[in-house]
Amino acid sequence: MAPDGEGPDGKRPARHRVVIIGSGFGGLFAAKALRRAPVDVTLIDRTNHHLFQPLLYQVATGILSEGEIAPATRDVLRRQRNLEILLAEVDDIDLTARTVAANQMDRTITVPYDSLIVSAGVHTSYFGHDEFSHYAAGMKSIDDALELRGRIFGAFESAEAEPDEAVQRAWLTFVVVGGGPTGVEMAGQIAELSHHSLRRNFRHIDPSQARVILYEGGEEILAPFGRHNSKSARKVLEQLGVEVHCGAFVTDMDDETVEVRFADGHTERIEARTKVWAAGMTASFLGHRLAEQIGAQVDRQGRVGVLPDCSLPGHPEVFVVGDLMALDGVPGMAEGAMQSGRHAAHEIERHLRGEEGRRPFHYVDLGQLAVVSRFRAVAKIGWFQIGGVLGWLLWLVVHITFLTGFKNRLGALAHWAISFMGRNRAERVITEQQVIARQMIKAHREGSADDEEADLAG
Amino acid sequence: MAPDGEGPDGKRPARHRVVIIGSGFGGLFAAKALRRAPVDVTLIDRTNHHLFQPLLYQVATGILSEGEIAPATRDVLRRQRNLEILLAEVDDIDLTARTVAANQMDRTITVPYDSLIVSAGVHTSYFGHDEFSHYAAGMKSIDDALELRGRIFGAFESAEAEPDEAVQRAWLTFVVVGGGPTGVEMAGQIAELSHHSLRRNFRHIDPSQARVILYEGGEEILAPFGRHNSKSARKVLEQLGVEVHCGAFVTDMDDETVEVRFADGHTERIEARTKVWAAGMTASFLGHRLAEQIGAQVDRQGRVGVLPDCSLPGHPEVFVVGDLMALDGVPGMAEGAMQSGRHAAHEIERHLRGEEGRRPFHYVDLGQLAVVSRFRAVAKIGWFQIGGVLGWLLWLVVHITFLTGFKNRLGALAHWAISFMGRNRAERVITEQQVIARQMIKAHREGSADDEEADLAG
Repeated sequence: MAPDGEGPDGKRPARHRVVIIGSGFGGLFAAKALRRAPVDVTLIDRTNHHLFQPLLYQVATGILSEGEIAPATRDVLRRQRNLEILLAEVDDIDLTARTVAANQMDRTITVPYDSLIVSAGVHTSYFGHDEFSHYAAGMKSIDDALELRGRIFGAFESAEAEPDEAVQRAWLTFVVVGGGPTGVEMAGQIAELSHHSLRRNFRHIDPSQARVILYEGGEEILAPFGRHNSKSARKVLEQLGVEVHCGAFVTDMDDETVEVRFADGHTERIEARTKVWAAGMTASFLGHRLAEQIGAQVDRQGRVGVLPDCSLPGHPEVFVVGDLMALDGVPGMAEGAMQSGRHAAHEIERHLRGEEGRRPFHYVDLGQLAVVSRFRAVAKIGWFQIGGVLGWLLWLVVHITFLTGFKNRLGALAHWAISFMGRNRAERVITEQQVIARQMIKAHREGSADDEEADLAG
Repeated sequence: MAPDGEGPDGKRPARHRVVIIGSGFGGLFAAKALRRAPVDVTLIDRTNHHLFQPLLYQVATGILSEGEIAPATRDVLRRQRNLEILLAEVDDIDLTARTVAANQMDRTITVPYDSLIVSAGVHTSYFGHDEFSHYAAGMKSIDDALELRGRIFGAFESAEAEPDEAVQRAWLTFVVVGGGPTGVEMAGQIAELSHHSLRRNFRHIDPSQARVILYEGGEEILAPFGRHNSKSARKVLEQLGVEVHCGAFVTDMDDETVEVRFADGHTERIEARTKVWAAGMTASFLGHRLAEQIGAQVDRQGRVGVLPDCSLPGHPEVFVVGDLMALDGVPGMAEGAMQSGRHAAHEIERHLRGEEGRRPFHYVDLGQLAVVSRFRAVAKIGWFQIGGVLGWLLWLVVHITFLTGFKNRLGALAHWAISFMGRNRAERVITEQQVIARQMIKAHREGSADDEEADLAG
């Protein structure tokens, strides 16, 4: 793992260089776990923040501000003296040369490593329909959430201004694709928003008449939470006024409509101006780059198979953790990323202490939590399935504890607790830049259709 | 004021229609003052939020989120039953037909009025150098503040990544143009940020080495606050490390530099990548449209002269309030806008009650407040000039009282108080959309230079 002539037992040794790709849960927890290790850590990410992805839907629906779920990574890790952060986009990994190539402010840099932890995560997959991305924003980044925030609040504004009743109804129809935690939470929050938070805000429309439709391809929503939770989550959503359709696949969409194929084979096209894509994930392209070099294949979600210790086959100096890692029994959720990131860091430390061999990664299942509505959540902890208010309280405690771990502010706790409990939507700003950027991107897209040679920067 | 056949004394009277243009301080306070009047109010604004402009600098420097200073106007006024809000951009006012023409979601609408209150405010003026807008963002909207937030935090990132020392210094040089409250507050906060908030965040630069330069064209900063306050504000800024230059005019700028002419006539060009424009204001173009129709001229700042009751000469049914109004003794600040907006509303109510004549507007000077640094503010209340910690406490009380007036949240107060007192910068997210929009606008600008015919939507 240590290159020739270096290492903890060498004479006046150069410090062992650990490069971590990604400041998500996997990367951040790996970095933190190395804070007292005799190593130099370089953390590379293309954004300036860590993202608390499980609360992204709260930014998209106006409850929390972007800063509240995305603290600056430099600030979170400022006291870690053995660590440097590079704001750069990783282009490639060279397993032979043991280097990472990245684009930092339009300059190509090469970062050598002795140990590498790849936690590059996943992004939205439209299952081969990349054109859907124009109509349905994903839910993986702050940009996604702010884009959706503008679209959701903008849809009510458009409906209010619309004289044609059919078009008004189309503006008041929201489609959420995907019945996992993110899709369920988004559908629940859009329903809450329209039925409660926006009350008395409009004069020509009744926001509570909005239709919120959730399409899930599988047999039930929140399938990994157990049958009991699935059923009760569905009931709560339906009480909120969400129309839940399982066994329903989105086959086409454009600015104005969505086409859906149902389990019985029949197809429907409905008028819906606002779509949220919470259905598919695909691993970072770095997974392919790693797999190629070891002569392996990525799995269906683009993830890389690893050895039981989370290392890349044939490359004990490279760990793949978090959502990019394919390892039996580890779900692609925050907890799995944290634990695998920490495991990789501990294995590097053990190696540097001269301990022999590798320990396999044991995922400790702390359960799964999803919020269905205000005061209602479902949780699965081992064999237990907890729902309703109890589930929600559990969710609240876990998330507040967790978030305040990053923050150093007395008021934050009160602020979050009240935001979570209240129905107020404090963050409703639609920026002009957002609207202009959308127009420019749309104009560019239309221009490109005419002229395939057109260049984004042209 | 009431058109033929309508009015409060007609048979089965149509309600008197009040149209208000602008949801800033003038428009919002006019609308609120009319909540019990027997009128139908239509409030038109092109944004979906009221903007608490005096705290805009806190969004630009990462202290508050956009939602905290820009509540949705619909939410603020949701309980006002006699009011409707149109999200639309006003294109013109026809004083003869008594109509307002506006663009609402790309449709042209015509809104008739019986009484009109124009509170369309001001925007940034570059004193005839519109090309400066590409390099120096103004400080008038949420978009401006978010743009500056990205540029300021991005400048430290660029400096950290920059191998060339001279360029690194240019990234760490911040120029603020304009020594009014906004310029002083921005300069103070950028200095606080670099000297304290970003401590330990970087490895290749020392953010406290950043230069913050404030250029003011006049003889002293914060001139309207009195000589004593001007001097003490300058002293506090200099203690914070801000270089303050009075009698200094910015004559040119580009992406990398700023050219300044000093009082003694000599000219200097300094390397500074980040510029803030807090110097000039010019009234909305609607001022010109109004002046034209009454055969008058706008003043040097584009403002419209009004009669002592705030009405447009020859048009008692039209009031011009806030920053767009030119009336002796009323400063272009929030307080003047609130009071004049309220005055216009009260005059309309008096007229509808059948009271004769008009009362002149008396501006009650509640003083002026500007924050120089954390715990230091200057205030001028009548003849009193208050500085230091006492001034700051006064500022805190006024602003928190005021902000919580819009909000209905227990936690907000604690949150703000702590944000104001702490050094933490919770809101540091740089969005990708922001960066892409900037690149596209830049590319477009460069394209346009080559091809004057190029179209933004092309």
